[in-house]
Amino acid sequence: MKKVAIGQAGGPTAVINATLVGLVETVQDECEVLFVQNGYEGLVNEHFLTGDEATIQWVTSHRHVPGACLGSGRYAFTDEAITQAVTNLKKQGADTLFFIGGNGTMEALLKVKQEAIQQGMELTVIGLPKTVDNDLGSTDHAPGFGSAAHYVAQYVKDASRDLHAMKNFEQIRVLETMGRNAGWLAAASGVYKEHPEEGPHFIAVPEQKLDRKELLRVVKAAIRDYGYAVVVVSEGVKWEDGEQIERAVVHGRAVLGGISEEIEAFLKEELQLSVRSELLGMNQRAGSQEVSTQDQMEAYEVGRVGGEWAKEGADHIMVSFVREQMDDYEMKLKPVKLEDVIHEGERGLPSQFIENPESYYAWLRPLLGGGTPSYPPLSQRRVYNHEKIN
Amino acid sequence: MKKVAIGQAGGPTAVINATLVGLVETVQDECEVLFVQNGYEGLVNEHFLTGDEATIQWVTSHRHVPGACLGSGRYAFTDEAITQAVTNLKKQGADTLFFIGGNGTMEALLKVKQEAIQQGMELTVIGLPKTVDNDLGSTDHAPGFGSAAHYVAQYVKDASRDLHAMKNFEQIRVLETMGRNAGWLAAASGVYKEHPEEGPHFIAVPEQKLDRKELLRVVKAAIRDYGYAVVVVSEGVKWEDGEQIERAVVHGRAVLGGISEEIEAFLKEELQLSVRSELLGMNQRAGSQEVSTQDQMEAYEVGRVGGEWAKEGADHIMVSFVREQMDDYEMKLKPVKLEDVIHEGERGLPSQFIENPESYYAWLRPLLGGGTPSYPPLSQRRVYNHEKIN
Repeated sequence: MKKVAIGQAGGPTAVINATLVGLVETVQDECEVLFVQNGYEGLVNEHFLTGDEATIQWVTSHRHVPGACLGSGRYAFTDEAITQAVTNLKKQGADTLFFIGGNGTMEALLKVKQEAIQQGMELTVIGLPKTVDNDLGSTDHAPGFGSAAHYVAQYVKDASRDLHAMKNFEQIRVLETMGRNAGWLAAASGVYKEHPEEGPHFIAVPEQKLDRKELLRVVKAAIRDYGYAVVVVSEGVKWEDGEQIERAVVHGRAVLGGISEEIEAFLKEELQLSVRSELLGMNQRAGSQEVSTQDQMEAYEVGRVGGEWAKEGADHIMVSFVREQMDDYEMKLKPVKLEDVIHEGERGLPSQFIENPESYYAWLRPLLGGGTPSYPPLSQRRVYNHEKIN
Repeated sequence: MKKVAIGQAGGPTAVINATLVGLVETVQDECEVLFVQNGYEGLVNEHFLTGDEATIQWVTSHRHVPGACLGSGRYAFTDEAITQAVTNLKKQGADTLFFIGGNGTMEALLKVKQEAIQQGMELTVIGLPKTVDNDLGSTDHAPGFGSAAHYVAQYVKDASRDLHAMKNFEQIRVLETMGRNAGWLAAASGVYKEHPEEGPHFIAVPEQKLDRKELLRVVKAAIRDYGYAVVVVSEGVKWEDGEQIERAVVHGRAVLGGISEEIEAFLKEELQLSVRSELLGMNQRAGSQEVSTQDQMEAYEVGRVGGEWAKEGADHIMVSFVREQMDDYEMKLKPVKLEDVIHEGERGLPSQFIENPESYYAWLRPLLGGGTPSYPPLSQRRVYNHEKIN
């Protein structure tokens, strides 16, 4: 390992820079570093940044800064572009390529490896996992997810207090989370719920089609019993008779979102109550105040260990988390083949976690950085809009 | 003072319960406490909660819990309703009434006082300030605002890092804040900006009509120089030739919002770039992770001091903050007459703060609880969509 090229790809997270810093601090003493800006686009268009002392120092100062400091992005990686990427790496004299990213990133990384073999170039490729959606296969979880899950769970807990206080004015809030085709984030919204009257009262995940009758039944019951209802829905949810809602298609990739507005309209029409939908915001993946200490630590470790393994000769692998026992979480890393990651594809929320949320929460809690907030129960006072919904 | 009735009104904040706790802990040893649920609606419809030991304990356990634990809400306070409110207080044997709230709350409190005089009832009324919008007159600022300002400033700082990383995919984000007719919150979004390339690049406040040309000029310059642009707009902003945008009217009160979507459409059309608008979310007023330690402390003090002053015989006043010197902030409280608060009306962001943001930030910083986050500069790398905007 003489010259290492490093890039970040896909949507940023609050801890993706920690992974970068862990890697750079591990490899910088033994080899030259070449930073790739703007993800795979930068690899193809030669947006390189030489890892001189000042640049290394600038990069490593981002350990606790959200966003991807090298620049990330989305990019449609054509065959031509892959050929160009390898040509560029050869020109730069790089013998190792690291990319931090999710499913698409790992797939692209393997393609680069295959093209390098074609071109007779010796190129080591190593993937470092990152995703707030937690939809990356062949790993127990990925850095970025713990912080995003904490963000969503804390947001919903606080928003429930806010809405409950305003229930003579506004009775229902529909909160839409990220997650793409996987329900991990939306389902995490219930992990801090301590009392039955607290929200969320209904959670919709993309792994199950949304049943209008069931939604209505649960929301009505919450209004009857507590005077308000908090619904959480993942951006990738489909109605029982519908398809995913796409806000836009950019670089061939669908940007999902909008199901919360449809649920708002449906509940308004059915219940004649005040309903407001809200997207939880892009800071699900960038909020610095909600970073999980465990997630931050693990993100750094993924980078550090990836660097160590590269020194030991690892190739075309992704650094992955293994959980050996459910009861007593201990972070443990192992290498998995990129082929296996890609073969597994997008990983949804398992049905046992959907059917038994408590088992999901037990799995999730160690990733949230501890310090679960505790709030007293809500006042069990009179409910006002009861009569309206029979 | 033998029996004290206490209520919360208007939109909740992350620290309104701290004020309630400060007050209750101060008065509970000397008098009976009667809690009014659901704001003025509860006063009229007799949603009272006896302050027995268990209830006092339940209330005081909310010191660090967002939302208004007694229930708040909005309510159109008619003459008939005011008469009923006073009758109810008389029936309960209450001789003192505290309400925690903003402009509307103080106005209602004075009306209750006047009605009590009419009915020959001796009733002491005291207002405790609360507003995330900071539009309450006769006080330097109000509890709730510091935490909301920190929320907005930190959100925008983090979102800027996220967007900058994605600028080959999405170039402009338009973030809409709360604030009603006042620009305090939107203007606070710049307080953590350390480097010219960081967002926000343009801030629109309701005190000034929004000029399309100026908006376009600044956004174009940011795209040219940094490759991306973050626009922050207050919900109450009007176009140069338009009116405020109302999402809904509930209980005769306009719920503002939607200007960010219009700005999104305008910038998309003009620049042919990828633009996304986002509402910063209801947790501007309820986010527990963004509470300012100073704000939390001051909120408690407002309640405690209000209780002390009531014991000393104060009447028809609001507890208010005074700032004696700009350089060396020290929290200082004084009573102001409710008439003066009402006479001053909604307080906008002063023009000297709009013209000289640094003077506003100097005024604002002591309220944010310290710990201003520091991020390194952004990479000064190539800018991609430059050619599109000439």
